[in-house]
Amino acid sequence: MVSKFANRVKNLAPAAVYEILKATTEGKAIPFSAGNPGFEAIPHEKIANVAAKILAENPNTALQYGMTEGFAPLRGKITEFLQKNLNISAEKNRLLVTHGATQAIELCAKAFCNEGDVVITENPSFVGTLATFSSYGINVAGVEMEHDGMNLDKLQEEFDKHEKVSFVYVIPDFHNPTGWTTSLEKRKRLYEMCLAKGTLILEDDPYGMLRYDGEKIPTLKSMDTEGIVLYVGSFSKLISPGLRVGFLLANDIYMDKITAAKQVSDVYTAMINQMIINRFMEDYGLEAHINEICGIYREKLQVALDSLDEHLGDYISYVKPEGGLYVYCKLPEHIDSIEFFKAGIEAGVAVVYGSAFSVDPDEKSQYFRINFSSPSIEQLKRGIEILGEVMRKF
Amino acid sequence: MVSKFANRVKNLAPAAVYEILKATTEGKAIPFSAGNPGFEAIPHEKIANVAAKILAENPNTALQYGMTEGFAPLRGKITEFLQKNLNISAEKNRLLVTHGATQAIELCAKAFCNEGDVVITENPSFVGTLATFSSYGINVAGVEMEHDGMNLDKLQEEFDKHEKVSFVYVIPDFHNPTGWTTSLEKRKRLYEMCLAKGTLILEDDPYGMLRYDGEKIPTLKSMDTEGIVLYVGSFSKLISPGLRVGFLLANDIYMDKITAAKQVSDVYTAMINQMIINRFMEDYGLEAHINEICGIYREKLQVALDSLDEHLGDYISYVKPEGGLYVYCKLPEHIDSIEFFKAGIEAGVAVVYGSAFSVDPDEKSQYFRINFSSPSIEQLKRGIEILGEVMRKF
Repeated sequence: MVSKFANRVKNLAPAAVYEILKATTEGKAIPFSAGNPGFEAIPHEKIANVAAKILAENPNTALQYGMTEGFAPLRGKITEFLQKNLNISAEKNRLLVTHGATQAIELCAKAFCNEGDVVITENPSFVGTLATFSSYGINVAGVEMEHDGMNLDKLQEEFDKHEKVSFVYVIPDFHNPTGWTTSLEKRKRLYEMCLAKGTLILEDDPYGMLRYDGEKIPTLKSMDTEGIVLYVGSFSKLISPGLRVGFLLANDIYMDKITAAKQVSDVYTAMINQMIINRFMEDYGLEAHINEICGIYREKLQVALDSLDEHLGDYISYVKPEGGLYVYCKLPEHIDSIEFFKAGIEAGVAVVYGSAFSVDPDEKSQYFRINFSSPSIEQLKRGIEILGEVMRKF
Repeated sequence: MVSKFANRVKNLAPAAVYEILKATTEGKAIPFSAGNPGFEAIPHEKIANVAAKILAENPNTALQYGMTEGFAPLRGKITEFLQKNLNISAEKNRLLVTHGATQAIELCAKAFCNEGDVVITENPSFVGTLATFSSYGINVAGVEMEHDGMNLDKLQEEFDKHEKVSFVYVIPDFHNPTGWTTSLEKRKRLYEMCLAKGTLILEDDPYGMLRYDGEKIPTLKSMDTEGIVLYVGSFSKLISPGLRVGFLLANDIYMDKITAAKQVSDVYTAMINQMIINRFMEDYGLEAHINEICGIYREKLQVALDSLDEHLGDYISYVKPEGGLYVYCKLPEHIDSIEFFKAGIEAGVAVVYGSAFSVDPDEKSQYFRINFSSPSIEQLKRGIEILGEVMRKF
């Protein structure tokens, strides 16, 4: 007498890699596996400060019901920030505050995709998003990710294959898991191709402001004269993941429906959390804080790369990331990345094997991903040294 | 060149009544319309206190990523609370912390219902839940709500009509919008009927602990020897809606899937918010706080009833609620409840007309709903006096 689950969740399960990591590493392994900000990059004293002010000065707004769209002053500040730093115009667009960027992506899946509809993603891509799409019975087509972005000839092949593509999901800046950045040329061509196909673009940009080197490349949303880009941002990597504040900025014509979808999902994002982000931006300035954490992560990235060169230089190759949180390392052909992952766990270092991010999880991957924001400088040095020892045993 | 929305959201729009109320009443009308706790019932100083302690003592847990299941100490405390106060056993059950109760209900809809599947609800019912079901293309069958709960003969008729019913959604205690409470006899029979039919029960219990009079009636979940009840609770009415912390307690066999559905939706509920509830329970005790707010609401309810008797006694009838947040008033037959609502708004008092809660929104309703928790004592007296003046004009 067990009621049946809905078809859409039949294949839904916690991501295998997370389960392995949870079981094997809790507090025990050096954490190169997650996408957490470093603890020293989370402004906890400033957050405590603004939280105290909000609860003293404005407790009723912070602790009562709020509007689905989000806390109006925060919506205004984010809109200004996007205009100033990313040249994203608020004109014809509307902003919705979400409970983390994942919710923004889920709302797009729910609002735009029937079961069986096609969505195209870079391959590999963020495992969380792939699972979100799967939970709506979406048919995900992966297109090979290259050092300068998605292979656009293969994207065209997919366009030719499918009459309707609901949207193309991309992480143009410091892509997860690869850390690679889509070139300006490819961004322009991708935009034109999607416009011609009549397909939306879901641009996921959690890392774009975390650039440590090189020149900023315009976001797809900043080129979006025709209103086809759904732009997702987050404060999880910039301020704190524990607050769960993200946002979606998209063309006005889509936002009534997406806002209604948010309303039936969780009514609104926790008010106090939105007010903490808002007051933080007001009192301390987001740009100043981002400058500060970019300094921290620039140093960590350099330590990671120096250690990789020293201990693994003879075995692996990587494209130096100019920002973000990850280095994606290519193993020699005779080494299986899952075997390498397991040996790492046994030696006390948790990386993530590449196939965890594959659209087809049975696909082989020659890569592993290292996160350099979460571990300490000491952990980075020691952990990569251990990975070198692990490597030499293969 | 506009991408099409998914079929499931085609009819989705912000609830009409909320839009009317937003447009007409912001700060202007006496608010008998929402389901907000009274400001004096939100323990804002205590919340400020525990928030400060958490951010001073444990900022890394509060501001980093968390597990999808929820903050373990909070899960433990809720489980204990349910055992002690509601005789709900944790055995064979598992608890998931959600971003408000609405998310718990959405996850059940997503996990158990294909598009076109049948769900049965009381009619009228909570408008938010009806919209959530609609957003998954669920076919909602309403069963007449009576003073002692759903008409079970009509429930049987619906069971006979539909081969499969995904679940029956009920608010047994101090039902929204009616404030009516399902009798023990009907609870027992409902449980047996669902068991016989092979149908789950989704028990929504945001108000159960807010009893001001009479004897507590056992929850359906406390009778659930067979594991068919999905139990939803919330801290929105008990502590603060702005924190967005709710929960789902259900049989182990369902929870892997539902937890995975939560993971792809927003990964986890904001950590700091969960820790605030947890520490509040630890430092101040939830039972003591609930006693305190029951005192506040008992008085407000009495004021509301006295004022209704004085100013509207010749026109309306109601069943005196023993708890919760609402009084449901029946108008004389010659008065249209939407006309009465509109006249109220014009006179500066916002009630909600009954058909806003109907499964079929075109259905006529002879009722209007008054919320007595949110307005002040003065507003209750003055607002109901105004409603009396409005009534006499009809």
